[in-house]
Amino acid sequence: MLDALFNPKAIAVIGASNNPRSIGHIVLKNLMEQGYPRPLYPINPKSPEVLSLKAYGSVLEVPGEVDLANIAIKNTLVPMAVEECGRKGVKFAIVHTAGFKETGAEGAQLERQVVEIARKYGMRVYGPNSQGVENSDPDARVYANFTFTPLAPGSISILAQSGGVGEVLQLQLSKLGAGFRMYASYGNECDVSQNEILEYYGQDAGTKVILLHVETLRDPAGFLEIAARITREKPILAVKSGRTREGLKAVSSHTGALMEKDVTTDVIFEKAGILRFYTQEEMIQTAIALAHLPVPQGPRVAMITNTGGPAILAVDEIVLAGLEMAQLSPESAARLRESLYPEAAVGNPVDILATATPEHYELTIDALMQDPGVDSILISFITAQFVDLDGIAATLSAWGKKAVKPLVCVIMTIPKWQRLIDAIREGGVPVYEFPETAARALCGMTRYGEHRHAPAEEFPELAVDRAAAEKILAPSPAGYLSQADAFAVLDAYGIPAVKTHAVAGREGLKAAGDAVGYPLVLKVDARGIVHKTEAGGLTLGIQNETELRAAFTEMAKRFRAESPTFIVQAQLDDAVETIVGVNNTEGPAPILMFGLGGVLVEAIKDVAFRLAPLSKQAAEAMIGAIKGQPVLAGVRGRGSADVDSLVEILLRVSRLANDFPRIAELDLNPILSFGPDGGSQAVDVRIRLGG
Amino acid sequence: MLDALFNPKAIAVIGASNNPRSIGHIVLKNLMEQGYPRPLYPINPKSPEVLSLKAYGSVLEVPGEVDLANIAIKNTLVPMAVEECGRKGVKFAIVHTAGFKETGAEGAQLERQVVEIARKYGMRVYGPNSQGVENSDPDARVYANFTFTPLAPGSISILAQSGGVGEVLQLQLSKLGAGFRMYASYGNECDVSQNEILEYYGQDAGTKVILLHVETLRDPAGFLEIAARITREKPILAVKSGRTREGLKAVSSHTGALMEKDVTTDVIFEKAGILRFYTQEEMIQTAIALAHLPVPQGPRVAMITNTGGPAILAVDEIVLAGLEMAQLSPESAARLRESLYPEAAVGNPVDILATATPEHYELTIDALMQDPGVDSILISFITAQFVDLDGIAATLSAWGKKAVKPLVCVIMTIPKWQRLIDAIREGGVPVYEFPETAARALCGMTRYGEHRHAPAEEFPELAVDRAAAEKILAPSPAGYLSQADAFAVLDAYGIPAVKTHAVAGREGLKAAGDAVGYPLVLKVDARGIVHKTEAGGLTLGIQNETELRAAFTEMAKRFRAESPTFIVQAQLDDAVETIVGVNNTEGPAPILMFGLGGVLVEAIKDVAFRLAPLSKQAAEAMIGAIKGQPVLAGVRGRGSADVDSLVEILLRVSRLANDFPRIAELDLNPILSFGPDGGSQAVDVRIRLGG
Repeated sequence: MLDALFNPKAIAVIGASNNPRSIGHIVLKNLMEQGYPRPLYPINPKSPEVLSLKAYGSVLEVPGEVDLANIAIKNTLVPMAVEECGRKGVKFAIVHTAGFKETGAEGAQLERQVVEIARKYGMRVYGPNSQGVENSDPDARVYANFTFTPLAPGSISILAQSGGVGEVLQLQLSKLGAGFRMYASYGNECDVSQNEILEYYGQDAGTKVILLHVETLRDPAGFLEIAARITREKPILAVKSGRTREGLKAVSSHTGALMEKDVTTDVIFEKAGILRFYTQEEMIQTAIALAHLPVPQGPRVAMITNTGGPAILAVDEIVLAGLEMAQLSPESAARLRESLYPEAAVGNPVDILATATPEHYELTIDALMQDPGVDSILISFITAQFVDLDGIAATLSAWGKKAVKPLVCVIMTIPKWQRLIDAIREGGVPVYEFPETAARALCGMTRYGEHRHAPAEEFPELAVDRAAAEKILAPSPAGYLSQADAFAVLDAYGIPAVKTHAVAGREGLKAAGDAVGYPLVLKVDARGIVHKTEAGGLTLGIQNETELRAAFTEMAKRFRAESPTFIVQAQLDDAVETIVGVNNTEGPAPILMFGLGGVLVEAIKDVAFRLAPLSKQAAEAMIGAIKGQPVLAGVRGRGSADVDSLVEILLRVSRLANDFPRIAELDLNPILSFGPDGGSQAVDVRIRLGG
Repeated sequence: MLDALFNPKAIAVIGASNNPRSIGHIVLKNLMEQGYPRPLYPINPKSPEVLSLKAYGSVLEVPGEVDLANIAIKNTLVPMAVEECGRKGVKFAIVHTAGFKETGAEGAQLERQVVEIARKYGMRVYGPNSQGVENSDPDARVYANFTFTPLAPGSISILAQSGGVGEVLQLQLSKLGAGFRMYASYGNECDVSQNEILEYYGQDAGTKVILLHVETLRDPAGFLEIAARITREKPILAVKSGRTREGLKAVSSHTGALMEKDVTTDVIFEKAGILRFYTQEEMIQTAIALAHLPVPQGPRVAMITNTGGPAILAVDEIVLAGLEMAQLSPESAARLRESLYPEAAVGNPVDILATATPEHYELTIDALMQDPGVDSILISFITAQFVDLDGIAATLSAWGKKAVKPLVCVIMTIPKWQRLIDAIREGGVPVYEFPETAARALCGMTRYGEHRHAPAEEFPELAVDRAAAEKILAPSPAGYLSQADAFAVLDAYGIPAVKTHAVAGREGLKAAGDAVGYPLVLKVDARGIVHKTEAGGLTLGIQNETELRAAFTEMAKRFRAESPTFIVQAQLDDAVETIVGVNNTEGPAPILMFGLGGVLVEAIKDVAFRLAPLSKQAAEAMIGAIKGQPVLAGVRGRGSADVDSLVEILLRVSRLANDFPRIAELDLNPILSFGPDGGSQAVDVRIRLGG
């Protein structure tokens, strides 16, 4: 669908000139120098020739068909050029020119004009204010871009919102000998979108790995759908800017307050199976490994080293990254002990000694490849003058073709021996400078492997009474539901809550008390009184009807101005306090939150987020992701939580939020959990409806 | 003191041979190829010539004086060679040969023999099982080492326990054009020690930065003393292996259980002002910046960029690393707005646009150098074909000489334009590949700047009754003190504790109750009953003498077998629970711990450690280092802590631990803190004495 953009049959460069610092000149020169093999038409009304090619006064004068036009002229002239492209039947126009939406209202108007003209002709516009595209396919060799990294065939495609970041990724890949497949930095995204290009990369057989830089997601729901589909087949690695920007504008719910701006991106990436990175370097190192190697089946890493120190640093990195040091099988160990030097250490790392021969490397790799307890192999090799360096490099290189598990190398050497690195990379084995970097690349690969090999997600059947919830929610205005209504909604969705009863005025006190039983708690129930405890809207430990009447009288007096209603609730024993929340104001779907309640959530924001709808696995992962695991398991002198019931609550809340997108925010805080089989009950609930 | 090792007047290589894969050959070749300018004597009884140099049958036959002998012969022959060196008056022997202590008892015996022989002659031994030393000083040019990174003069010296790690550091410095000054990887450390070499680097005027790799500290107290002295003058950067190894063997105190193996290293490094790194790469990048640039006065970073995306990633990294984005002064902003392109963004980052000229770079750097609100400058530059690249590189390079604040560059480019990077580095401005890396280097520099510019530490005068504590501690056997004794020790050191009184049997109950007042708490006080609550050794809320008698009767029955004693304590209100501890079984001095008590310490191990003696600043920093700050400040509905009183408790506990090294472990858990001016009181104390 974007073929005529990434693999055009002929290209016109509008604004091609002989001024070597003009964008038009540079784009034309790039196309020529990088070997575009099909017709190229410079468009320049003033020069009969540009860069020795015949130039035309207008795209309309071009004799043959034109698939793609690169436009690099003054912004106010762009609409006319687009009009001419349309008339000519051009399929795509890349507008390099800046001075559009990014500069304000006037530029935005100009941009809309361009899109409207193009639409008349069924022509697509890429940009404006964009770098362009590249395609290193040997048959295409398109460099319709004004940057400078030479084409170098590879299988990693780059999609970058920031041209600068895209260029950095591209030139690093090129430097590391990995090359790249396609490149796109799409500027203002007035027509051809991030999502379309992503989809196109997904379908491109030559693209094995996709690198993404995003600052904002224009259409998060579409992005999620496309990306989730792609990551089942090929990895998407992403780096996103702006993770330290100001948080959300203040919101009144716990869930909202605990969500930092970036949570939305995190949950979308997580749901889509995208690997998120925080540095470009780490992302590139992982991409190179994924482009060349099989995906690891598990986290167990075996190391081969010829010197101890750097290997130990890599072990630290492996363990801290959440991977495991493999336990070699007795067979592997016996085989290695038999064949290596007697002083070699046959553990993990296998220290085959500085004087190891190429044969030692060969048989050690072979043993680990065959060992069922090993999922990936890291070789840490420092060159030395007293061994057969080229023999070792040849041995390592040969494994690129036959490796059934990922094999990465760290070669610590000087420029004089660069040929060793080149030889190993030539074989398809990634080479890193530092053991730590290689360990991190293996970690990224393993994260992708976990996603690829994860069992199908389960979405258990849940019996819910949607109609009952609908009956409460549909007529309610925007804002907070009453406590009584909110508890009724929970009840409709089978979300367990403490026994609660609305107090129908003073005369309803006896009935309410009898309904929940003593001891009980009296609470004010009024919109706007959010922090009940501080406001004096909560009386605990009411033992009988007399005390209830006294507490009611006092509380009614205190809140006379708000003319509130009241509820009573059974008073529960102490238990593990947790919190479940929903925010549906930021993401493409409701964002669920789980955390520990009480002091932990307030002191260290120990919470986890996921996008709805939650699978059983996702709900379990949320609970497993919080740091305060010992609290759930029961710290000294305290009970544990009933995790199963918490998983079910998360699933039911997810279903509720999905069924009713008007629920903008929901907090169950606290949910008391009485483990291991004691169940969990929401004690307090707040539901805010959107408009 | 190690001059004859690092700058010898003549060198003999014992075991120099014509076999190109032998260590003796390689060391001799290295010395020759790297330009050692003074007499070199191969020692080989079988060849009259090695590498075209006249060889001698024994070091005794060498005509001139010999400062240094490199020994690379069979391990069992080493003692004889050392004997001959001694007779010859050699000052230092580097033993490359392996097969000594690292191989077991027999090797250890051989090693002792070598040391004894050397001692007879006043000769020093370096190694065995060692790489050797290097000195790139243009007058010395010593490469008495069998590795392969060519000498390249620089001001960074390397001291590595692992030869492999040392070599990686050296070759990376060389690759990045930074060179190095001295190099030592010292193997088994049988005589010449890590600490001596560190001291030597500290005194070497040519060494501006020291890079350290350690696995173990042989003499931590000596190391601490030397390193602390050096870091006042020049930075020490360290990477240490083994941070994921098994924790300490189980210990019975909280403090011990919360200390992971690596805490000892962390507190020693912290006290010595050593910057600790977790990857070699980050350490090297920081070292290069420190070697060339002034130390930043503060954390405020200004950025100059010619393209937005990569700059934003760097901003993220800067903020997450704890640095700040500087606020430009109105004067700087006005000056920049006047001189840059109108579309340039005069914020921070200053986006001077892709088309910026060399003059734009010059005046922007100048403005930021003069801006008092800016402590360091990061330039993020992507090359482009449409600007004066060499002009920009020349401008940046020139700032290397005149920068009064650190200035680091990120140059994102292709190999074709490597000359730009070389030109900038030539001027003394560090160049990085990724904005994130540069940000991290600035962060490392700023950490060092904070250490260098920190005001002198204050050690407030504390009134303590050392004699009173001595009187209790001196006669006590190894093991736990009784509660009564432990509280008395606290009292002697002015450490506030809840009012506590020993119960002198049943007949003492009335006196005890009257002494502390009601309500009170009755506790069993017996060695071995560590977790009182679980054992039923604690009764709360005793309101009067009758209740006290009843509780006593019951508890006495329960613990009849242990024939314990008992204490009563005043019962305190709820307050912020904290914990202070001491462990003096691992480090060169007692290690102090501070943490939040209760669920936080159990659930997330939110604790901070420092080495005694604590200064006021260190005590404050410990309290400031824990994550649960909101708990100290008072989370919703709870009180805050009295931080001043906690600081004083830490100082007094530090003093106590320092005065009595026999205190192996001490726990004050909990200490209730009644802020802001309410003071803090230890409720429970355990003191374990060593043998």
